[in-house]
Amino acid sequence: MPSELRKDPLSQRWVIIASERAKRPGDFEIDTAPKVPEFDPFSSGNEDKTPPEIASYRKAGTAPNTPGWRVRVVPNRFPALQIEGSLNKKGEGIYDRMQGVGAHEVIIETPQCVRSVSELTDVQVQEMLFMYRDRLNDLRRDKRLKYGMIFKNVGEAAGASLYHSHSQLIVTPIVPRTITQKLEACQEFYNYRGRCLVCDMVSQEAEGKTRVVTDSGLFLAFEPYAPRTPFETWIVPKNHESQFEDMGQQGFEELGFLLKRTIARLEKGLGPVAYNYMLFTSPFDSPALPYFHWHIEIIPRLTKQAGYEWGTGFYINPVQPEDAAEFLRSIKLNGS
Amino acid sequence: MPSELRKDPLSQRWVIIASERAKRPGDFEIDTAPKVPEFDPFSSGNEDKTPPEIASYRKAGTAPNTPGWRVRVVPNRFPALQIEGSLNKKGEGIYDRMQGVGAHEVIIETPQCVRSVSELTDVQVQEMLFMYRDRLNDLRRDKRLKYGMIFKNVGEAAGASLYHSHSQLIVTPIVPRTITQKLEACQEFYNYRGRCLVCDMVSQEAEGKTRVVTDSGLFLAFEPYAPRTPFETWIVPKNHESQFEDMGQQGFEELGFLLKRTIARLEKGLGPVAYNYMLFTSPFDSPALPYFHWHIEIIPRLTKQAGYEWGTGFYINPVQPEDAAEFLRSIKLNGS
Repeated sequence: MPSELRKDPLSQRWVIIASERAKRPGDFEIDTAPKVPEFDPFSSGNEDKTPPEIASYRKAGTAPNTPGWRVRVVPNRFPALQIEGSLNKKGEGIYDRMQGVGAHEVIIETPQCVRSVSELTDVQVQEMLFMYRDRLNDLRRDKRLKYGMIFKNVGEAAGASLYHSHSQLIVTPIVPRTITQKLEACQEFYNYRGRCLVCDMVSQEAEGKTRVVTDSGLFLAFEPYAPRTPFETWIVPKNHESQFEDMGQQGFEELGFLLKRTIARLEKGLGPVAYNYMLFTSPFDSPALPYFHWHIEIIPRLTKQAGYEWGTGFYINPVQPEDAAEFLRSIKLNGS
Repeated sequence: MPSELRKDPLSQRWVIIASERAKRPGDFEIDTAPKVPEFDPFSSGNEDKTPPEIASYRKAGTAPNTPGWRVRVVPNRFPALQIEGSLNKKGEGIYDRMQGVGAHEVIIETPQCVRSVSELTDVQVQEMLFMYRDRLNDLRRDKRLKYGMIFKNVGEAAGASLYHSHSQLIVTPIVPRTITQKLEACQEFYNYRGRCLVCDMVSQEAEGKTRVVTDSGLFLAFEPYAPRTPFETWIVPKNHESQFEDMGQQGFEELGFLLKRTIARLEKGLGPVAYNYMLFTSPFDSPALPYFHWHIEIIPRLTKQAGYEWGTGFYINPVQPEDAAEFLRSIKLNGS
């Protein structure tokens, strides 16, 4: 079968599904025995090895920065951005710059030294998601700040510098370009059709089923039509919701369950793969948009970004998403 | 010093220059002893180990696919795109796709098994550039094809699967997004000011000098104001030229000399770093644009792209480009 060019309507990004380069799940090189560190600054008992905590869920009566916490948020020790100072926007000839005002936080998801979301308990995953919500809601109050991006790096190939399962939050004084592009594509679709693009995508996927990994009732986990990497997987609420933070209790419970099992599925099928995930919610100053729909993108790091991807924004993917979905559906998980 | 957000006017991309994460040239982990392969399909004598050649510069009287060549172009053995077939553009519900018509070629720059452009002779680098031009000019004649991207991957961290110094050319039936974005930014600037954005950038850099690595007369090698990675370096013609392929003989000679020495400078300063470079020329159907200016971007692969970069299109760079330029200027090269 010849290669195919496919366009993702949300990011407007083209990918090349390169069947001449076709690969099977076992063909990818991954680090099959990630090394457990000798010293873990994120474990319970080592609270003094991180900057002082910003927030935590902890046993009543225990003091901040002591054991007793279940989820703990600290500033990144080497923050990309800091909350102090003013933006001080400036030109420099034809260039533009501003001070790096914002936030860069680390969400430590468990007191135990485990590597991946798949090793957390269901309650821990759910509390991790509550903390995502609480931190976004807190930082939204700072009117200088425009967008909060929650993301996760697991494994060295995904850019993780620490083994212990954690997420990060970077909040910027501008809405990043990737989000602006998605917003524009969604708004254009909405103006033309009066419907939300992602709602249409979800209903086409749920009906067609060929790219669906799991339909959990409230959420759909599926391989996008134009995935950047083999086994890229999205998790999207089936009903229209523009803001992750507004989700009800039932949603958090079901999302936690599904997120954990989707990652377990990837890891059971591929081995302890390095991965990133990113949470796309609406910008701070536009909570309830009829055209934007929050979602999570999970990117297993099985291919390397080379000169072509840097130069063009195209991605070359050797695995058909329909095949990836079929493979992931076939994985049997314990207790489900 | 606090972090700074800087915007690249050409790609409209923001980067975070994160001084809290500041690194010095020796702080990056690189593979200091890249392994020379036991078998090299690109060496002279192994012509039958690649698909048959598309073009070559070779000794008069020698036959194609035999030794005697100096530069040799073959189809990629696992092509992302192929020249046969029709585009067959189609919708699939809300999605768009087309057949993967295009070209994916490998430019083998030398019959000897060396790793990097810095190890080629001056004549070899120049002939490599001639071949870039000749392949672009040849493929431009196919009216289905819209854009040719020449790029290079050196080292495993940069996505190279073969050691032997080579470049690649991927030609697509659409203009990739990264190029469209640059074209739009340049056109907007031109409409507003009547000048080419990159011409303005070059004159600001040449005058300010803080980010300049080498001013060779016809070209400027400099660290861009908002680099994605530490030691990202651009090479740009100082006079307005929208199309690389139209360059005169003197330009090819000087560009080859400068490109080789710029990469040698990076390697002498940082060790045998993995790198990509990409050549941005104008689209096939718009050769002489008053607002577009061809250029080369060199990306040393010293940092990993993690969830934040995937999610936002922002890059976090721990090295100020002014410091990087000062460091690179201080490197003494043999014979220059």
